[in-house]
Amino acid sequence: MKLIFLGTGGSWPSKLRNVPSLAIKYESEVVLFDCGEGTQRQFMHSTISFMQINHIFITHFHGDHFLGLPGLIQSMYLNERTAELNIYGPEGTGYFVSTLLKMGYFKPSFEIYFHDLKNGDVVEFEKYNIKAVEVEHNVPSFAYSMEEPPRPGKFNKPRALELGVPEGKLFSKLQRGESVEVNGKTITPDMVLGPVRSGRKFVYTGDTRPCTAVTELAKDCDVLVHDSTFDEVLEEKANRYGHSSCTQAAKIALEAGVNRLFLTHISPRYEEGVVLEEQARKIFPNTTSAFDLLEYEIRLEK
Amino acid sequence: MKLIFLGTGGSWPSKLRNVPSLAIKYESEVVLFDCGEGTQRQFMHSTISFMQINHIFITHFHGDHFLGLPGLIQSMYLNERTAELNIYGPEGTGYFVSTLLKMGYFKPSFEIYFHDLKNGDVVEFEKYNIKAVEVEHNVPSFAYSMEEPPRPGKFNKPRALELGVPEGKLFSKLQRGESVEVNGKTITPDMVLGPVRSGRKFVYTGDTRPCTAVTELAKDCDVLVHDSTFDEVLEEKANRYGHSSCTQAAKIALEAGVNRLFLTHISPRYEEGVVLEEQARKIFPNTTSAFDLLEYEIRLEK
Repeated sequence: MKLIFLGTGGSWPSKLRNVPSLAIKYESEVVLFDCGEGTQRQFMHSTISFMQINHIFITHFHGDHFLGLPGLIQSMYLNERTAELNIYGPEGTGYFVSTLLKMGYFKPSFEIYFHDLKNGDVVEFEKYNIKAVEVEHNVPSFAYSMEEPPRPGKFNKPRALELGVPEGKLFSKLQRGESVEVNGKTITPDMVLGPVRSGRKFVYTGDTRPCTAVTELAKDCDVLVHDSTFDEVLEEKANRYGHSSCTQAAKIALEAGVNRLFLTHISPRYEEGVVLEEQARKIFPNTTSAFDLLEYEIRLEK
Repeated sequence: MKLIFLGTGGSWPSKLRNVPSLAIKYESEVVLFDCGEGTQRQFMHSTISFMQINHIFITHFHGDHFLGLPGLIQSMYLNERTAELNIYGPEGTGYFVSTLLKMGYFKPSFEIYFHDLKNGDVVEFEKYNIKAVEVEHNVPSFAYSMEEPPRPGKFNKPRALELGVPEGKLFSKLQRGESVEVNGKTITPDMVLGPVRSGRKFVYTGDTRPCTAVTELAKDCDVLVHDSTFDEVLEEKANRYGHSSCTQAAKIALEAGVNRLFLTHISPRYEEGVVLEEQARKIFPNTTSAFDLLEYEIRLEK
């Protein structure tokens, strides 16, 4: 589960930062969160291809978060995509995106499905699920979590041998959570497996002022990517426009007990994110100010 | 009259080239021709600002030529533009652009006017005019010329003195094309002015297969910026999709007697434009393969 920051700016692009987009590479799949103007070109500078995208989740319909969609989809078409594409977002997704695709002379060669999600909706995929939670912006906006199901606990091999289970097929059965019979005795998985391990979890807030919905969604996650439009001096202004300061993002990371915080949606007024990072680290040391094309792998806990 | 190539690629962007956009800096004004996705960010890497744009002319409504409009306009709004903006293009301009501006939650703070032009229409501005001419693409498409009115001929100072005109105000009057009285004799402008000098003229084809409409429009122009999607080996394919090869662009430049040819709308298949330039120069030596952020000043003839 690798995060690839394609655009870490907010409102409008700057020389250094493109407008929001964040790709998650999960095995051979790519899930895209937000798709600001120029996202398709950001892909070209990254280690992944936009032809790999399986699903797109839009946080809200402010231009900087979705205006890269029509160009991206047209380029997928010109590069002969045939697989269907699913686009998810808050109310209005179907209307906005389907209208956007009628702009100019264009007809996609593959199926595009739109999904207007509701607060709390969970979209289930084979190996992970994505949950949408309403946040506090000035238009309908979601934060998203992407989470793997829990994995069975660690297999205690010495204990299994002690109980007389022979190495081989029966080990695998126990690891899959099935009971086995050995010399007329039933060995249940809980006798040889450690406590269930939680799957990997990442949360992306989109645009929001600090809110408990995010704190709850981000509970114990591996990575929180949080709106950090301004530094703490401009906190009041950030909140007025439905955004957060870096310090507020750090407080939420601390309260939610996340492992790592990335600051994003950084205003064009900041040449670099150093100030934001320094202020946030006073509260939550494990903070990084994201920058375009930064990659971060969330590793499976052993 | 300075050309600033903001995007010289075609169909979709590449690492090296953004999709089409060409700005003309004319004194303090900026006229934009086409506005592919990412044009606002290309401005940031150039010597001019998108806040200076007075008028926008779109050649046609294929995504690579206009999908940068909504983001550009929203960024103008966020940067507090108040001046009205005029957008011109072929039939459908009003429909496509006004719909595009309804995408997402956005209401511009300044007036935007749309103009559906017809073949042969000339839009008159104070110091230049812009003419739209239908070309041969697979959707309604224009080439545009931007041209200054002719300037009065060169002032022959020795001849004026010889005719008894005293240096000063009367010189200016004659230079402006007015007759003057000197010692009861009428001196007319044609007695002291050389032949009328043509104004500067630039022609941008947008996407087109080779056509006589362009040859006629480009007659004797200073600069022709021509579709050159493929090299001569792929000429048949270029024409099939409504485009030109570099060689065909060169032939038109030669036939129209232009001063300088720039090749643009270069397919992502070409890393650089050297091949295109070399092939074209065999026919029309004064050819340059345009690249992003290239600038070229059309100077006033002395």
